[in-house]
Amino acid sequence: MKLGRLNHIGVATPSIADSIVFYRDVMGATTICEPFDMPDQGVKVCFVDTPGDGGTNGTQIELIEPLPGNASIAGFLERNPQGGQHHMCYEVPDIHAAKAEFEAMGKRVLGEPRIGAHGTPIFFVHPRDMGGVLTEIMETPKGDH
Amino acid sequence: MKLGRLNHIGVATPSIADSIVFYRDVMGATTICEPFDMPDQGVKVCFVDTPGDGGTNGTQIELIEPLPGNASIAGFLERNPQGGQHHMCYEVPDIHAAKAEFEAMGKRVLGEPRIGAHGTPIFFVHPRDMGGVLTEIMETPKGDH
Repeated sequence: MKLGRLNHIGVATPSIADSIVFYRDVMGATTICEPFDMPDQGVKVCFVDTPGDGGTNGTQIELIEPLPGNASIAGFLERNPQGGQHHMCYEVPDIHAAKAEFEAMGKRVLGEPRIGAHGTPIFFVHPRDMGGVLTEIMETPKGDH
Repeated sequence: MKLGRLNHIGVATPSIADSIVFYRDVMGATTICEPFDMPDQGVKVCFVDTPGDGGTNGTQIELIEPLPGNASIAGFLERNPQGGQHHMCYEVPDIHAAKAEFEAMGKRVLGEPRIGAHGTPIFFVHPRDMGGVLTEIMETPKGDH
C-alpha cells in the first residue's frame, strides 16, 4: 500500500452547532459544509475545510455528533465530555484492495466496506492494530483528482 | 483570525523507531524524516509526509516520543499505552498577532511562543478552551509558500 492523502481528521463533539460557531469565530474557518445525518452509522457529521498548500484543498475536519442510540461516540464523549480527536482518515484508490492488504497484515478491519460521509466506500481499522489511532480508510471520490 | 493550513497532526508513541516501521510498512509512507531530539521540550520528534492534493505537500504526521523527565507525554502514554492522536497544529502568518487574538478571546495560551520542530515560533492552546483538542499554532516557515 502507498500512503494516501489525509482526507480528514474526525473530531467528536457533543454539539455540532456549537462546534460550527467555534470553527467559524475562533479558528476563522470560511467554508463549513451543511451538517447532515448518517442514520446507518448513528452520527450527524459536518465538514470544515482547511486550506491546503498553494490553494489546494487541505485535510478537512469532520465534526461528529452522536445520534440517539450511538454507543461508541457517546462513550467517547463520556470519557471526553468536550469532545476531541476521534480518528484519522486516509484515501486509497481501491477500497477492496486496501481491505485485503490490511487483513493480510493481520490488521482488524471493522466490518465490510460501507458508504461513508463523502459518498465513497470506507472501513475502519482497529486502533489497537494502528498505534492507538482509530483509522478510517476511504476510496478517493471519482473525479476528485 | 483566518483558518490556516493544517500543518501536522501530533501522534504520541512509546517508540518512534517502531512507529517509523509502522508508517513505512503498514501505511506505505515514502518520506519519513530523520528523528531528532528537542531537549527543551522534552521530546524526540519525527515527521512523516503525507501527499497533498495535486502533488502538493499534505498535512504531516508528527511522531512524538517523550525524552526522560517529560511528564506530559509520559502521562498521555500512561493513559494510552500504544500512543494516539495528541494535538493538531495550524499555521498562522504571525505568531504574536495570533497569540494576542487567542488571548483576546479568553483562550489559555500555554506559555510564550518558542521555537518549534519546524524552526518557527509556536505555542499551544489549552484543549479545554478548544473543544477538547490540544491545539498548536505555528508561524508558517518563510519561503514555504
